[in-house]
Amino acid sequence: MTKAVLTISSKNYGAWALRGWLMAKLVELDFSEKVISPDDPAMRAEMLLLSSSIRVPALHHNGIDVWDTLAIAEYLHEIRPDAGLLPADPVARAHCRSICGEMHSGFSALRSSLPMNIKARSPGFKVWSRAQVDIDRICTIWSECLSRYGGPYLFGARPGMADAMFAPVVTRFITYDVALDPDCAAYCQTLLALPALQQWIAAAMAEPEEIDELDAEF
Amino acid sequence: MTKAVLTISSKNYGAWALRGWLMAKLVELDFSEKVISPDDPAMRAEMLLLSSSIRVPALHHNGIDVWDTLAIAEYLHEIRPDAGLLPADPVARAHCRSICGEMHSGFSALRSSLPMNIKARSPGFKVWSRAQVDIDRICTIWSECLSRYGGPYLFGARPGMADAMFAPVVTRFITYDVALDPDCAAYCQTLLALPALQQWIAAAMAEPEEIDELDAEF
Repeated sequence: MTKAVLTISSKNYGAWALRGWLMAKLVELDFSEKVISPDDPAMRAEMLLLSSSIRVPALHHNGIDVWDTLAIAEYLHEIRPDAGLLPADPVARAHCRSICGEMHSGFSALRSSLPMNIKARSPGFKVWSRAQVDIDRICTIWSECLSRYGGPYLFGARPGMADAMFAPVVTRFITYDVALDPDCAAYCQTLLALPALQQWIAAAMAEPEEIDELDAEF
Repeated sequence: MTKAVLTISSKNYGAWALRGWLMAKLVELDFSEKVISPDDPAMRAEMLLLSSSIRVPALHHNGIDVWDTLAIAEYLHEIRPDAGLLPADPVARAHCRSICGEMHSGFSALRSSLPMNIKARSPGFKVWSRAQVDIDRICTIWSECLSRYGGPYLFGARPGMADAMFAPVVTRFITYDVALDPDCAAYCQTLLALPALQQWIAAAMAEPEEIDELDAEF
């Protein structure tokens, strides 16, 4: 059995990479990182097209290749069923997959106008009205989960798939100084305190700024 | 136990609705359809934003609400594990989820420039170069599956989740007269011959044309 390899991109800009990486950490998978160069077309694709690409994130484990963030989540849940990546209760599990699916294919206004950029701070950032619709929907999703399952994570006491899916959104809310109600603001702080997310953020902060021209495109 | 209800939109235009509906048929779920009016904002959203919305498709079953197409697939697989919606082999299952995830979040050029319109025929349609990149990737996905699992469906002898995810693409290839290699063309014919897809297509053909102005927007 060889060690798992997770292909990721920039830790500062790669929102999909963060989701896959955080899921692997949450199930305590022993993996090494393969980082795609900023000059690689796949990395640009991940950030410019703002979608999960074929190559990032991708997991190679025990001879199996899994790409796409949701497929990685389901795979990790299958090999580590006790890690709680998905809720044990079938009703909560269906709810979890529904909101993860929304994050996977939707919120395009948020993703394009508030791209993940962990290093940056934009106090007083003016949110475009369509992005605000996305933000409002995300806050509704969070509030429903926190009240139904009791917090502090979206599906209760342990962080899981849904928290990983929304982790890049949390960093965007910090970067772009987005006003949130107290429950949602508290949820952001809960997620930011996760040791794995702290580790990712520290690496993002230390990442060389090789792609200024890409940043400037946003 | 009440009968399941699947919320869908137009059978002519609703690509995400078709995916969810076909999955429910493949597992032989006993369900009734709740059709959202063409004037409903959710229906316009599904077709104009070209993404799975909160409301379409949505499944209500045994008190559980599941929305988002991939979440519905996973839910149906859990309640009907023997229906073969996902492959039994873990390697094939990871592969299936990876390509379904690609379809769920990607191929935006194809989806925006060749929208599903089952009634229409556009012989000699000029495919935009970025949509052609999507078409080429889809053909690669299909060819890999057909050669690896032996066909006639993407993961072998039974139609499943991946076939449902790509079914609207098959109807687009017919509508827009897209040139395909023999294996991919044969796969399209295999899928079009599925009784459930035949039933959907017949209903699409019979659907009143209430939304001309929407059609004209594409």
